[in-house]
Amino acid sequence: MKGNWLLPESLADMLPAEARRIEDLRRILLDSFRTYGFELVAPPLVEYIESLLSGTGSDLNLRTSKLVDQLSGRTLGIRADMTPQVTRIDAHLLNRLGVTRLCYCGPVLHARPAGLLANRELLQIGAEIYGHAGFEADLEIIHLALDSVRLAGVQTLRLDLCHAGLVRSLIETDPKAVSRADEIMALLRDKDLPGLTQLGTGSDALLPATVGALVRLPQLYGDLTVLERARKELPRLPGVVAALDTLEHLLGALDDVSVGIDLADVGTYGYHSGVTFSVYAQGWHDAIVQGGRYDDVSRAFGRARPATGFSLDLRKLVDGLVPARPAPAIRAPAGQDAALRQAIYALRQTGNIVVQVFPGEVATHDEFMFDRQLVLLDGQWVVQQVL
Amino acid sequence: MKGNWLLPESLADMLPAEARRIEDLRRILLDSFRTYGFELVAPPLVEYIESLLSGTGSDLNLRTSKLVDQLSGRTLGIRADMTPQVTRIDAHLLNRLGVTRLCYCGPVLHARPAGLLANRELLQIGAEIYGHAGFEADLEIIHLALDSVRLAGVQTLRLDLCHAGLVRSLIETDPKAVSRADEIMALLRDKDLPGLTQLGTGSDALLPATVGALVRLPQLYGDLTVLERARKELPRLPGVVAALDTLEHLLGALDDVSVGIDLADVGTYGYHSGVTFSVYAQGWHDAIVQGGRYDDVSRAFGRARPATGFSLDLRKLVDGLVPARPAPAIRAPAGQDAALRQAIYALRQTGNIVVQVFPGEVATHDEFMFDRQLVLLDGQWVVQQVL
Repeated sequence: MKGNWLLPESLADMLPAEARRIEDLRRILLDSFRTYGFELVAPPLVEYIESLLSGTGSDLNLRTSKLVDQLSGRTLGIRADMTPQVTRIDAHLLNRLGVTRLCYCGPVLHARPAGLLANRELLQIGAEIYGHAGFEADLEIIHLALDSVRLAGVQTLRLDLCHAGLVRSLIETDPKAVSRADEIMALLRDKDLPGLTQLGTGSDALLPATVGALVRLPQLYGDLTVLERARKELPRLPGVVAALDTLEHLLGALDDVSVGIDLADVGTYGYHSGVTFSVYAQGWHDAIVQGGRYDDVSRAFGRARPATGFSLDLRKLVDGLVPARPAPAIRAPAGQDAALRQAIYALRQTGNIVVQVFPGEVATHDEFMFDRQLVLLDGQWVVQQVL
Repeated sequence: MKGNWLLPESLADMLPAEARRIEDLRRILLDSFRTYGFELVAPPLVEYIESLLSGTGSDLNLRTSKLVDQLSGRTLGIRADMTPQVTRIDAHLLNRLGVTRLCYCGPVLHARPAGLLANRELLQIGAEIYGHAGFEADLEIIHLALDSVRLAGVQTLRLDLCHAGLVRSLIETDPKAVSRADEIMALLRDKDLPGLTQLGTGSDALLPATVGALVRLPQLYGDLTVLERARKELPRLPGVVAALDTLEHLLGALDDVSVGIDLADVGTYGYHSGVTFSVYAQGWHDAIVQGGRYDDVSRAFGRARPATGFSLDLRKLVDGLVPARPAPAIRAPAGQDAALRQAIYALRQTGNIVVQVFPGEVATHDEFMFDRQLVLLDGQWVVQQVL
């Protein structure tokens, strides 16, 4: 029994102050999504592993915990990312022809933490638009992502843009690169220039032009002049030109935020196909929001639909915010008489926090600030300020 | 790839209409808990199996899915019930001396469905009071449970009371019964009279007095006169008398609800120690709320604290309610000009749902009822009723 209250590494309880802050923000964000017309859905915690990983890369597989389904004997995964699940819902459950906006909020579990300080359980909240391939959907998703971070009280933020079509084009023109795509993505994510240069040597060597372009990508990072440099320095492949055009178009419509370009920001799970983006802010050492277009995931479910969306971890977001203040509350004495019960009931009905003391209780409360008490004065229960 | 959108048996997505109804009710209940002074906590989805099962019976073990922790190699369980987790938080994380009120809401997973029609994933919401052994805590929990069901719009309901001390007393006086406690609990749960009678035969036979009393329990069911019958028909053991006294005391304070007595209602997970209760309502074939006192779970965490609480499955509760009506919404035309963006922004700020159509989109929305549209009249964006 000893130590049976200890939690596994990189897992933690949300205690009252944090849980309350997260709950408040959860509601604010879901309400904001709703005013844009996003409908809430909630996929299950576990699914067959083939469904969870449909259309995704090997990273998500490594991050997904597996167990055996006692009913079917098949392998289940605990979701590590809700986006593929929501894509499945759009493709097969709602099965609508037009544009569909979906949002969600729920826990996801990583088999191993994503970083040294990362939690293995995230509270993922996000929004996705299905059925529109135009840049307007990307723009709406980016606006919503920025609004979300601002609603959390983060005012100074930076948006980094990228386009998954760039790397895809470079890889597709080189058969050796196609077979080493996972490796290339990992090197780009780590901005590992020596590793990228090494891709040009050995028996599996990529074409010199491919290596040259891949090595350029991590250096195409900074302000908007990066797009001009990219047009000069990258091969003029149709996919590359189209991606740079889309980014330029999007930039023209983003006038109320500081925007950077990071052409090596290829995303985590390898399912992105178009514009991708990350939001950074002071107080968080890496991106607090990630999103982008992923038109190919639904194809894996047998029904190709354009798709773009974003998500963030509410626990990580709240971790960098100022803690909430204790809520004001009213203390009520012990007792079951009808007048006291009625007075307490009426106060609670109007949203007051009323904690009724138990007989013999030594009152010690942490989350609340008891600035008022319920007392009997001339036969009437009244609220009195505590001095 | 074929069929990769199919979900495992007894698992389901929450689609928009259901998810919205659940989200609304989740907020109403958590807000209600808060007005009583319950603080929100959120334990992790998975924990070491020894922690999850501390102080609980074999039923919870069978219902808990296991997997291997990739960081420690130890066995993890996916929570099948949040109450033991919240008890751990009270005992070791908050570690307060006084009364602590905690509440929670999150998904739990059952390895096998609890019944033929049951879902394996529940959305468990509940509230617990730690640190007060008196009946006032039980009463507050019962009032809160009844309020919760009423807030969901269920007006006609029935509260069934029981006391785990009754069965415990009967078992403790008979060594053979102690070793067959799990079996006895299962027979009582199923109200299996032939099975209970069989306990008196064979090499492991219980004492005739024990069998006689156990067989009485499922028949001690009905209105308040059951308590009088129980006093006559059950052995006058101190634990039995104390349990019946507590139930009578509680009944005196429950004046606004239809109350029944069911002395074989021993609860699911075998951790209850005092008053237990269930709430039933028309439209649900079994209890929609279960709760009770469980003073022994915290002892397994090394810090004995009186405890009582209740929980319910929000999905099951919503399943029996009238579906929500589509929400009214405003349709806005495509475009990025500043005046249109400003008009949409202002409408959303005041809580309106404004769905902006994309260029070329054929609008088909399911959850919303578009009763208004945003149109340009004399150079001004105005909201117009749709006839």
